[in-house]
Amino acid sequence: VPGHDPAALIEQAAAGDRAALARLLTLVERGGPEGRAVARLVHGRAGRAYTVGITGAPGAGKSTLTDALVRHLRKLSEEVGVLAVDPSSSRTGGAILGDRVRMRGHAGDDGVFIRSMASRGHLGGLALATPEAIRVLDAAGLPLVLVETVGVGQVEVAIAGAADTTIVVVAPGWGDAVQASKAGLLEIADVLVVNKADRGGVDAAVQDLEGMLSLVGHDPGGWRPPIVVTAAVDGAGADELWTAVCDHRTWLQSRGELGRRRRLRLAAETREIVRRRLEERAGELTGGDEFDRLVDEVATRRLDPWAAADSLLAASDPSVPAPDDEGDR
Amino acid sequence: VPGHDPAALIEQAAAGDRAALARLLTLVERGGPEGRAVARLVHGRAGRAYTVGITGAPGAGKSTLTDALVRHLRKLSEEVGVLAVDPSSSRTGGAILGDRVRMRGHAGDDGVFIRSMASRGHLGGLALATPEAIRVLDAAGLPLVLVETVGVGQVEVAIAGAADTTIVVVAPGWGDAVQASKAGLLEIADVLVVNKADRGGVDAAVQDLEGMLSLVGHDPGGWRPPIVVTAAVDGAGADELWTAVCDHRTWLQSRGELGRRRRLRLAAETREIVRRRLEERAGELTGGDEFDRLVDEVATRRLDPWAAADSLLAASDPSVPAPDDEGDR
Repeated sequence: VPGHDPAALIEQAAAGDRAALARLLTLVERGGPEGRAVARLVHGRAGRAYTVGITGAPGAGKSTLTDALVRHLRKLSEEVGVLAVDPSSSRTGGAILGDRVRMRGHAGDDGVFIRSMASRGHLGGLALATPEAIRVLDAAGLPLVLVETVGVGQVEVAIAGAADTTIVVVAPGWGDAVQASKAGLLEIADVLVVNKADRGGVDAAVQDLEGMLSLVGHDPGGWRPPIVVTAAVDGAGADELWTAVCDHRTWLQSRGELGRRRRLRLAAETREIVRRRLEERAGELTGGDEFDRLVDEVATRRLDPWAAADSLLAASDPSVPAPDDEGDR
Repeated sequence: VPGHDPAALIEQAAAGDRAALARLLTLVERGGPEGRAVARLVHGRAGRAYTVGITGAPGAGKSTLTDALVRHLRKLSEEVGVLAVDPSSSRTGGAILGDRVRMRGHAGDDGVFIRSMASRGHLGGLALATPEAIRVLDAAGLPLVLVETVGVGQVEVAIAGAADTTIVVVAPGWGDAVQASKAGLLEIADVLVVNKADRGGVDAAVQDLEGMLSLVGHDPGGWRPPIVVTAAVDGAGADELWTAVCDHRTWLQSRGELGRRRRLRLAAETREIVRRRLEERAGELTGGDEFDRLVDEVATRRLDPWAAADSLLAASDPSVPAPDDEGDR
């Protein structure tokens, strides 16, 4: 059983210890001071992995497609980490059942590491925990990280869209393509997939997507998302999909876009941490005895609400980090 | 034309100058440093007015009912202020058209002051501006303030519910009562009104509401909202409605509930100001050159996002109030 020391765990994970890697991901998922320590330590060792987001409506076959992609990558001898992010479920001790079921297909293969991320505490926590988990896999030496989101809420779309290349999956049928468009998925798509080619209605779905892409409009010389047809159950199209991802990667790198995108994501992440730190502070400031005392003064008209707020803010010192002993964040 | 000095305007308004009162409300609605100065100054002079919120689905006849109530109150020689809060519309210079149309019915009557509040800047601003506007009317000596909300969104319901007595208006017809229940209106209702008694279907609507009230459940000895039937067009039922409001007021006062409720509202208001102050700060901290410089360090892995956030927070000093030169809030 691996220990709790973040620095030691990171060394072990980087040396190929998968149990240490799993432990690091648990700490990051859980948040709190240990998770934060892990997140801070791995940042300096990360930055090499390429990340691919996979999203789409329920029933479009995201997990099957992810598995087909992993099988294809293993044929190419690429090592790969998979994060399956599901904000709607919460972990109830140990791994989510799906982890083990899915890992079984890759039993004994150290070149694949699959892990689901569930929401512990409030929903927004995953938006911070996911990039941290990606960097853990990155620091452990995995050169590719696939991030599959299970739902299609705002958080899921934001998480899948925060990748170097984002794949949006739709099943054949007009409804699904329209849904994807409405959910804002076309705007974040770098590669579009019509999955379940065995089902029929593929040509119509491709045409629908082409039509909607024309409406969205793309800059001349900009990237126009290619549409790839797959039948994930038997792996058909996985090779073409991976080629499309690699084309996008090359395009990003040739333009200096990759660095620019990553910088924007880190800026958004830092902004979110500042916002959250201040939110924690607001909770502390308006939860204690001093707050009650000031509200008494407001109620008896000796103070006005703005003066009470200023008094609370003046008493706080933001250079002292917020208490950090809670598991949630 | 009244001047801009808040203290002088408050003296004038308290002496019965309606133009000064209107000017104060404009400043509070607009927000910014002058509005804040007004809000702070009136707080100490307020606390005597009784506030009545009026809300309900569109088409239930809220404005007509409010007018009927005002006519009834004028017969009783009660002075009254009316705030019609409409977060969906925004003021485009001067008063909203409706103000003048509605004021015309009370032309020359200094015992009524009607004012609409529109959203300037972001939606949440009205949630802070409304209690401040109520206190302006209060400090000007109006002993009763009716707050009518035009829509039924979360903000509108929150605003109408933040009164001493809240009236929820429904039109006859099962649909409307169910809608009111779904929108969470039954929980905030102190008095229920079935309006448009001329329309038919009144008995059914009253029964629906009775049934739903039974489902909500009330503490033994607690307040069970009475149901009043009105036909606001000809003023029928306004007397009974006002009696119900006065009964509720007496009930609140006999229990010490009135003071408790007002203290809770002031605590919520102070909490909201703290939250907003910190939000302003987050915007300042993550908008400047120092933020860009730190993100560069994060992108080049010399700093991690948590360290960058802490560095920004440490550089800020919350005892210095945020710059206050913007009109919005």
